[in-house]
Amino acid sequence: MKRSTFQHFDCSIARSLDLVGEWWTLLVVRDVFFGLHRFDAIRDDLGISRNILTDRLTTLVDGGVLERRPLEGGHHEYHLTEKGRALYPVLVSLMQWGDTWATPEGGPPLRLEHQCGHDPHPQLTCAECGEAVTRRTTKVRRNRPAAARP
Amino acid sequence: MKRSTFQHFDCSIARSLDLVGEWWTLLVVRDVFFGLHRFDAIRDDLGISRNILTDRLTTLVDGGVLERRPLEGGHHEYHLTEKGRALYPVLVSLMQWGDTWATPEGGPPLRLEHQCGHDPHPQLTCAECGEAVTRRTTKVRRNRPAAARP
Repeated sequence: MKRSTFQHFDCSIARSLDLVGEWWTLLVVRDVFFGLHRFDAIRDDLGISRNILTDRLTTLVDGGVLERRPLEGGHHEYHLTEKGRALYPVLVSLMQWGDTWATPEGGPPLRLEHQCGHDPHPQLTCAECGEAVTRRTTKVRRNRPAAARP
Repeated sequence: MKRSTFQHFDCSIARSLDLVGEWWTLLVVRDVFFGLHRFDAIRDDLGISRNILTDRLTTLVDGGVLERRPLEGGHHEYHLTEKGRALYPVLVSLMQWGDTWATPEGGPPLRLEHQCGHDPHPQLTCAECGEAVTRRTTKVRRNRPAAARP
């Protein structure tokens, strides 16, 4: 079943999901963040078929999220591009939400350690004033007229 | 095609995606954040079939992300629970990433306005020291031994 596309949506969330919202895709990105760079290592970690992993890696390379680096001996590795590294806040936010609201048995498997030595309990803050960015402190405005539906 | 489940994954990102990672689901949540609470309003906005929307709303209500509130006349509305409102940083992070890396034609459709009057350009910061939480400033540690694969 081919999924639909969000390409035509006039929404940055939809456009993000069009690139990384497919089942398995963000877990592949997670694995690369965690230092798995080889096809077989990612496949072993996720336990998915070669076909699905090949498909997701192709999407991520074509979408500019990962780059494929050739190694000696015909092997190659997958590394995050700048665009891929920019997904860090998305993954951290999903991890935090899961830690609290969909906690794996035994509690959160991982914890973050900030350079200050503490668990950072990351929160979104305003680059201008430093205060928290929450639904209560922040409004959403139209930046321009909405595009017509195609 | 029934998707697989990430329920057994010992990972909070996977467990989050198990609840909200299915195609369309986060866009439904986005719509409720933006003030659409009625079935028909969400359906018109997303342009999806009644079947798919019914399925996603059921998942979200069963998963405790949305609650279904009866109205007079047999109608009802969908509202975010506390668990649903906690997805705010996930949506903001996806919006930011899309604004930069998958920009809709014409530029970002929406902008945030913080209570200080500025575009907050939200960033993750450490609740302890206030400095930025990035891949460079933050390590990922195991919190406990990994669970065995079932």
